[in-house]
Amino acid sequence: MKSICGVEGVTAAGMKEGRYGLALVAASGTSAAVFTSNRVKAAPLILMKERIALGELDGIIVNSGCANAYTGEKGIQDAALMSGIGADAFRTDPERVGVASTGIIGRYLDLDLIGKQARQVAPRVRRDPAAEVEAARAIMTTDLVEKHALVRGDGFSVGGICKGSGMIAPNMGTVIALLYTDAEVTAGGLQRALRLATRRSFNRVVVDGDMSTNDIAICTATGKAGKVAAAAFRAALEECARSLAIQIARDGEGATKLIEMVVRRARTEKGASEIARTVVESPLLKTAVYGEDPNWGRVLAAAGRAGVEFDPDHVSLFIGAGEERTPLLEKGKIVADLARAKAAMKGKEVRFELDLGQGKEEATAWGCDLTEKYIEINGRYTT
Amino acid sequence: MKSICGVEGVTAAGMKEGRYGLALVAASGTSAAVFTSNRVKAAPLILMKERIALGELDGIIVNSGCANAYTGEKGIQDAALMSGIGADAFRTDPERVGVASTGIIGRYLDLDLIGKQARQVAPRVRRDPAAEVEAARAIMTTDLVEKHALVRGDGFSVGGICKGSGMIAPNMGTVIALLYTDAEVTAGGLQRALRLATRRSFNRVVVDGDMSTNDIAICTATGKAGKVAAAAFRAALEECARSLAIQIARDGEGATKLIEMVVRRARTEKGASEIARTVVESPLLKTAVYGEDPNWGRVLAAAGRAGVEFDPDHVSLFIGAGEERTPLLEKGKIVADLARAKAAMKGKEVRFELDLGQGKEEATAWGCDLTEKYIEINGRYTT
Repeated sequence: MKSICGVEGVTAAGMKEGRYGLALVAASGTSAAVFTSNRVKAAPLILMKERIALGELDGIIVNSGCANAYTGEKGIQDAALMSGIGADAFRTDPERVGVASTGIIGRYLDLDLIGKQARQVAPRVRRDPAAEVEAARAIMTTDLVEKHALVRGDGFSVGGICKGSGMIAPNMGTVIALLYTDAEVTAGGLQRALRLATRRSFNRVVVDGDMSTNDIAICTATGKAGKVAAAAFRAALEECARSLAIQIARDGEGATKLIEMVVRRARTEKGASEIARTVVESPLLKTAVYGEDPNWGRVLAAAGRAGVEFDPDHVSLFIGAGEERTPLLEKGKIVADLARAKAAMKGKEVRFELDLGQGKEEATAWGCDLTEKYIEINGRYTT
Repeated sequence: MKSICGVEGVTAAGMKEGRYGLALVAASGTSAAVFTSNRVKAAPLILMKERIALGELDGIIVNSGCANAYTGEKGIQDAALMSGIGADAFRTDPERVGVASTGIIGRYLDLDLIGKQARQVAPRVRRDPAAEVEAARAIMTTDLVEKHALVRGDGFSVGGICKGSGMIAPNMGTVIALLYTDAEVTAGGLQRALRLATRRSFNRVVVDGDMSTNDIAICTATGKAGKVAAAAFRAALEECARSLAIQIARDGEGATKLIEMVVRRARTEKGASEIARTVVESPLLKTAVYGEDPNWGRVLAAAGRAGVEFDPDHVSLFIGAGEERTPLLEKGKIVADLARAKAAMKGKEVRFELDLGQGKEEATAWGCDLTEKYIEINGRYTT
């Protein structure tokens, strides 16, 4: 087991026909969700915002191929009907079913297809390694690889699957993350932990800076493992979410390299995070990483426009990790050995570390390089 | 005359050797400047911020090839020395000379070269069509074309040249805009007019969302045409700046199409502007325009993440201008004729108009499509 089926009380199944996929994940327990902050919200999110207030779910139904976004009142009714299809599968009330969609914006759900697929998938909902793979594949759109994470805590587990290959893929959308734990957590505690974990993981991944209308992360706590230390649970949830988030960045559309941007010694975590995100979002930095060009000026130029106060003369910048960590700037002085810096850009992961020298907080963001393939995926192949 | 030499009291000259260019523009009068809001500011900007407080200049010296950015105390001293070179050319005090630089970040100015070039250029400072072309060419970096604008007001003129081909070009940087008028304007009035014009022009152009460490716009009013109506002057300055800004977007790195995004009936101009900028900055919209894909969902998805409140159900969206203006959404209802919409994307200019239906304010932003060529310019050819 490498993700959700590693958690007590979680069963799953899924299928995919062409671009149309359906996943069913059954897990009864306390549930929390966080949503895209995009003002244009897809119908299933509008429904889920209300529904999650109850704090309890028995399962989640997810379709790929159609985002059910920008579909007005009918879209919300369709999302409710889709949760009814899930309710039949899970033998529960529609109010206890979570629903999420990913795919093309501005089209209505094909509820006949979703109903037919759900009836095929429902009898196969089970707990084994193949089941979690099926579910992870069913929710993929332009993703090239499935994404799984499982974190073992002291007597409990947190597992998750997600999809996402760009904040928005071509016509397709969305990060969808389904997280599960067998720890016993209150609804309020789960909501706070999920919000924090999301802020430090999915919200720090930038593929293209575009934010989906359909982004959603849902966590259900089955309670099978009983009560656990709150701090240990929060740490495990964050680690699980971070692992999934990094997998999204690595699988970014057209990406050849993962970019990790660490900002240290900032006054606030928020400030550190703003800078880290702005840097990994910079098209100039992304193209420089693609070209393995140690053009560190682009890190500073992006950091400078993040809207966070810092003194450029107190800043240190490093490239690489561990023994290969190479200084580029030390307290504002240029010390870059460009040959070593270039060598640090050769691998599949490029890491920058910016020390602001002003406080004690830090944050990390993840992104990927920008390549011709991104243009091809999003521009050359038209709808 | 098509730009600065069309303004009474302005003379110019310039030269370029490989990537190293030098422009001298002589014009005595009331002066104002606006600067990048990037926290990392190039040395010439730090010098100019102080100097412009005097409100008077006799001329401006600009070099291309080296940005004199991230060069610490020495950089500021070098900028002062460069203004001394300009002072020799203009036979005035260094305090009355404006200075700007564009090019590679993190390198010191070659003052010997700049001095030698200035001595060659100074005797040729004059008022004719070839002179303004020389000056406009001298400040270019990755720009493919020079940028000129001249607006004739009632008894006065406003002319300008600028450079910029991306907020930052590969290693290169910067929008530099030199604006001149023969209208008589107070220093305070000029500063306010320039700030407003910049906000509505250069600040609404996005090529890649990256903001330079060296952006500067300077305006000198020679006063040769005497006093003019304040509103007429502000309108002419804005028109001149807008013309230059659109030329920058059109000449964006790798661009094949200009994107114009109009946001109407917003509650505030600031809100309209945030949305317009966010849309033209969206890599997904930019690649869709490149691929002539009428994927209007991307306009809405980008608008929704601009941080501005609006009701998606009240929004109308159009593509194209004049008789070819085609509705895509009407008050939240999808009415798109995708064949007509696709036809509207065929030309060199693609225009979207988003009606928020909530107020009376509007704003326009300009950008360009994102193509493989951008990646090639910024990634494949390394330093």
